Amino acid sequence: MIVVLKPNTTEEELNAVVQEIKNLKYEPHILRGVELNVIAAIGDERTHHTLETLTVFPQVERVMPVQSRYKLVKRQVHPANSVIQVDHRVPIGGKKFQVMAGPCSVENEKQLLTTALAVKKAGATILRGGAFKPRTSPYEFQGLGQEGLKLLAKAKQETGLAVITELLSEQHAELVAEYADILQIGTRNAQNFQLLIAAAKTGRPVLLKRGLSMRIEEWLLAGEYVIANGNPNLLFCERGIRTFETYTRNTLDLSAIPIIQQESHCPIVIDPSQGAGRADLVMAMCKGAVAMGADALLIEVHPNPAEAWSDGAQQITLDGFARLMQELKPFIAVAGRE
Amino acid sequence: MIVVLKPNTTEEELNAVVQEIKNLKYEPHILRGVELNVIAAIGDERTHHTLETLTVFPQVERVMPVQSRYKLVKRQVHPANSVIQVDHRVPIGGKKFQVMAGPCSVENEKQLLTTALAVKKAGATILRGGAFKPRTSPYEFQGLGQEGLKLLAKAKQETGLAVITELLSEQHAELVAEYADILQIGTRNAQNFQLLIAAAKTGRPVLLKRGLSMRIEEWLLAGEYVIANGNPNLLFCERGIRTFETYTRNTLDLSAIPIIQQESHCPIVIDPSQGAGRADLVMAMCKGAVAMGADALLIEVHPNPAEAWSDGAQQITLDGFARLMQELKPFIAVAGRE
Amino acid sequence: MIVVLKPNTTEEELNAVVQEIKNLKYEPHILRGVELNVIAAIGDERTHHTLETLTVFPQVERVMPVQSRYKLVKRQVHPANSVIQVDHRVPIGGKKFQVMAGPCSVENEKQLLTTALAVKKAGATILRGGAFKPRTSPYEFQGLGQEGLKLLAKAKQETGLAVITELLSEQHAELVAEYADILQIGTRNAQNFQLLIAAAKTGRPVLLKRGLSMRIEEWLLAGEYVIANGNPNLLFCERGIRTFETYTRNTLDLSAIPIIQQESHCPIVIDPSQGAGRADLVMAMCKGAVAMGADALLIEVHPNPAEAWSDGAQQITLDGFARLMQELKPFIAVAGRE
Amino acid sequence: MIVVLKPNTTEEELNAVVQEIKNLKYEPHILRGVELNVIAAIGDERTHHTLETLTVFPQVERVMPVQSRYKLVKRQVHPANSVIQVDHRVPIGGKKFQVMAGPCSVENEKQLLTTALAVKKAGATILRGGAFKPRTSPYEFQGLGQEGLKLLAKAKQETGLAVITELLSEQHAELVAEYADILQIGTRNAQNFQLLIAAAKTGRPVLLKRGLSMRIEEWLLAGEYVIANGNPNLLFCERGIRTFETYTRNTLDLSAIPIIQQESHCPIVIDPSQGAGRADLVMAMCKGAVAMGADALLIEVHPNPAEAWSDGAQQITLDGFARLMQELKPFIAVAGRE
Repeated sequence: MIVVLKPNTTEEELNAVVQEIKNLKYEPHILRGVELNVIAAIGDERTHHTLETLTVFPQVERVMPVQSRYKLVKRQVHPANSVIQVDHRVPIGGKKFQVMAGPCSVENEKQLLTTALAVKKAGATILRGGAFKPRTSPYEFQGLGQEGLKLLAKAKQETGLAVITELLSEQHAELVAEYADILQIGTRNAQNFQLLIAAAKTGRPVLLKRGLSMRIEEWLLAGEYVIANGNPNLLFCERGIRTFETYTRNTLDLSAIPIIQQESHCPIVIDPSQGAGRADLVMAMCKGAVAMGADALLIEVHPNPAEAWSDGAQQITLDGFARLMQELKPFIAVAGRE
Repeated sequence: MIVVLKPNTTEEELNAVVQEIKNLKYEPHILRGVELNVIAAIGDERTHHTLETLTVFPQVERVMPVQSRYKLVKRQVHPANSVIQVDHRVPIGGKKFQVMAGPCSVENEKQLLTTALAVKKAGATILRGGAFKPRTSPYEFQGLGQEGLKLLAKAKQETGLAVITELLSEQHAELVAEYADILQIGTRNAQNFQLLIAAAKTGRPVLLKRGLSMRIEEWLLAGEYVIANGNPNLLFCERGIRTFETYTRNTLDLSAIPIIQQESHCPIVIDPSQGAGRADLVMAMCKGAVAMGADALLIEVHPNPAEAWSDGAQQITLDGFARLMQELKPFIAVAGRE
Repeated sequence: MIVVLKPNTTEEELNAVVQEIKNLKYEPHILRGVELNVIAAIGDERTHHTLETLTVFPQVERVMPVQSRYKLVKRQVHPANSVIQVDHRVPIGGKKFQVMAGPCSVENEKQLLTTALAVKKAGATILRGGAFKPRTSPYEFQGLGQEGLKLLAKAKQETGLAVITELLSEQHAELVAEYADILQIGTRNAQNFQLLIAAAKTGRPVLLKRGLSMRIEEWLLAGEYVIANGNPNLLFCERGIRTFETYTRNTLDLSAIPIIQQESHCPIVIDPSQGAGRADLVMAMCKGAVAMGADALLIEVHPNPAEAWSDGAQQITLDGFARLMQELKPFIAVAGRE
Repeated sequence: MIVVLKPNTTEEELNAVVQEIKNLKYEPHILRGVELNVIAAIGDERTHHTLETLTVFPQVERVMPVQSRYKLVKRQVHPANSVIQVDHRVPIGGKKFQVMAGPCSVENEKQLLTTALAVKKAGATILRGGAFKPRTSPYEFQGLGQEGLKLLAKAKQETGLAVITELLSEQHAELVAEYADILQIGTRNAQNFQLLIAAAKTGRPVLLKRGLSMRIEEWLLAGEYVIANGNPNLLFCERGIRTFETYTRNTLDLSAIPIIQQESHCPIVIDPSQGAGRADLVMAMCKGAVAMGADALLIEVHPNPAEAWSDGAQQITLDGFARLMQELKPFIAVAGRE
């Protein structure tokens, strides 16, 4: 930690800080600068008490940590890319580019199967569909629950697609893990640490969406909860952050792709549907994501978006999805993926 | 709902939208303007399917809801202020101004009791203290758990202060409700709807912190989950939102006070400690909150902030708290409170 | 305009609003809904007084404009893409993809010429370089001024590259226009309307960077100032917006590419250097921008970034630029550009 | 500056950084930590080349400045509060609390004089009114220009109120300074450094509004441009920042009051009208600002807000202003002001 003192601090004030640094088991080194003094406190920041509390001393201007707070998600502990095996057969994070697609919510058998068959035909390998839905208002459709999970199982059986679905309650962890090949943690639960732990403990791959206003560091630390609880099958998913812009529902931060790849060994997935909140932007977003090196896409597809039970405005049609997959092919090739 | 069509839309395209509006059970009224046409769709937006999905029609420019989505938290359904009785004896939302104070985390008996006695002496009526702590990193202190709850009970017994503590897992709802007079829902769980439902069902007053990037409407809707699940004892708590500013940890949005009072009948509490993340700003924040009409304050106080186990930088000392209470008095009086 | 009244508004209150709408020369249509009433006010919002002032009536809940406020930048008035001819020979917005590159600041003849020759060799067609520099602190290097412009002219003469440089004072408009083939308006001046007018009047192409916290609509309206002042040679340039994220200097909003192309006929340029503020992210950003359909890139390149006089952290080396251009080629081809 | 190296950096890589630090005239001190090494570079950061460029070395993780970049606005160089004398008779920053009030735009003689007389009667000492108006759209009313200035002069003569009005073009600096007792720099020009310099050179007090997305440090540095150009009569004005919230037009950051007072000796003024964008929130905002220690308020007042030529929704009526001043009195007293 670097402790910056205010200009004109007396020796006595400096010593008080030095003493507290020693109390907290760091080794202080005083650096006398031209305008002000700085104390470098040597010690492992991840196991010691933070020194950020020293700002309660009026003579302390600022305290700056120097170590990154995450360990297990970090690229340095695992220099190669982690390849996550979904359902023991669909690898994410390797050479092969994967597409997960399906409706925002599972509504009924016909809607789900029609969509599953169509997305499979177009090239998707994983079926998405919400059975438990976190909704901003209690008066909105909350998902079919277990019935939705059973429909997903049926669609999996008929199409061979693996299944990703959202987990939104610790109490459903077992149940959802029974049906799902990937557990999705939604943006509003991205720092619901109890849920992350429950998801981790199922052993299933966990796709962790970035919280609406989560800094990269916080996202990596939330991922750290998964791996630190014994589950290395972690996928990060960027789905748009909240900014001042109102033209789109969220601002898709595609720079998360190279950043996650630099900081972490875990795969990075892009969700352009949530990211834009508008079906007409999905195509361009997908091309950008592929070109920038994303490992997979998560796309909302619905047979009739105008009558979808949730988030219709951002879902694309079955035909639209087929066209999208067609147009993406050359970009996938140029990006060095299959 | 108001459906705005693009300029130069043909009659046929207009009719297709009109037809879909009818399918979705609204009554369409066409308004022909100077540059473009608009369809007003009459129907209860809270019980019908949203028309926002109509943006999937290329001829639709925009869809604008007109009704507010919340009902039970709304000022109009309950024109008088709701006064929440905490522990059957501490009213929040009425004439009497309340102060909740205590350490960020419960660390041990001595730390808690010393603080409890000091804040009580200075005028606080409710003791805060975290037993289960949501922490950004899995390597940070996660709270004493049930032992912390027991210490809170002991402090309550010795001082007569009511107790507020955080609930962060659905699975602890019963347990925490046994010890706490108010259940606090933290900012990272503000849209963890399953937790809100579990908290509501205990019947205890629920203090709902605003999410880091929650719009007022979303916050009210999260509160709606509590009341809609049978618990009218809801308190809103502003604790700073996330912005681009880095000088403070968060940006305390004091305008939430008049806004919540205008939109809702529920009390509004201000947490200046989280809001600023810096002890040296707490005093000014408290004065502003009182002057603007807040119903209560939630303040972090610690006997020795430099060695606090969590969030030391924002906790004030016992002496600092006594001074704060002294300085606040005339502001409370001028604001028409006791 | 749509004027939404509060629930339970009386007929008298409704009539007062209707009367004011008539005073302001709109034609009111009353729509009686299930919970509340709405008045649709017909009239051209761009020439009439706004009705947003009606929110001063306590019975008015909200006023929602329906028309877009921009005209000349709008795709609908010019359905084909505008192709801007830079220096009568370098088209931006057509089939050919263009790259503008060069140092953040012009420092001296050697630095500029070395860079110009290198970027030309690698395939750039336009040279960037700041002569007048807007700096956050008055103590930072403010640019070489006119001497910098002269060096740019020399570099143009020796390499044949067209030149883009920033205009930051109305009083320099004539001077800068003498040397520059494109006038750049920086992010901090994006709503300095007097500067936009002065730039427009020179007749030179104007590259308008998006303001740090500018909504798409505001950016289009700022562009409207240029075209409305007689200069149709307008380029929009996305360079990152300000968000809560601190890992990158700004958040590059690549969704601006499809959005600008949908809303406007003007070309869209991406500046990944400012967007990321980190040289190590520039490559991925460029690939994404190309794939999503950008018309040009604006890239900072310096012979020795570690000793650059401004913004060294985001500038790439001459070798780095050559590699970048090489790697971009297949993406440019796949995106259907040359 | 503190230069943090990546874990596992070799001695050779470390030496390369040390050498570059020496090249840039700093004195390097190597600190060997448990996980990684840090180099403290001693030297005046405000006169030396920044070391932030060192992040172009792949072995450098991060570079952290330790000195604040501003000097003249800083509390430390002028420990007492600066009191700015407006028109040689109205002090801002001292014991006396000041209120500036008037219409958003000067529209005509009657509107201005009526307002001026009313606000004077209610207790304001400075008249605000826009003659040159920066408007988001080129089709909105741009102000009466010089005619507006003349009307302000007339109102000053008749009422004795001092005058504040906005300067938005370098080319008008002389002209506006002739009529205005305070030059206002608007939020969109807060980093238009040429305008700041031109304003500074007139010698008139300069009220610098915070930019829409300006960090505190950037705001202080913009103020530094004014004082560094020979004009110590600087006022900071908080008027709301841009966030994700849409209920209010901006988010008024009242924490700017204690922060500016801690960091700087210059007075701090609050503009609740722009801050909220809604007349119904102005009263509460004013109370908060006074309680938190603001030196003055800047309030928009109009005889008939519904028909105001600009920003009607946020202007209060003459009666509303009189009531506001009445209600503020006890808060001003309690805050220790007159």
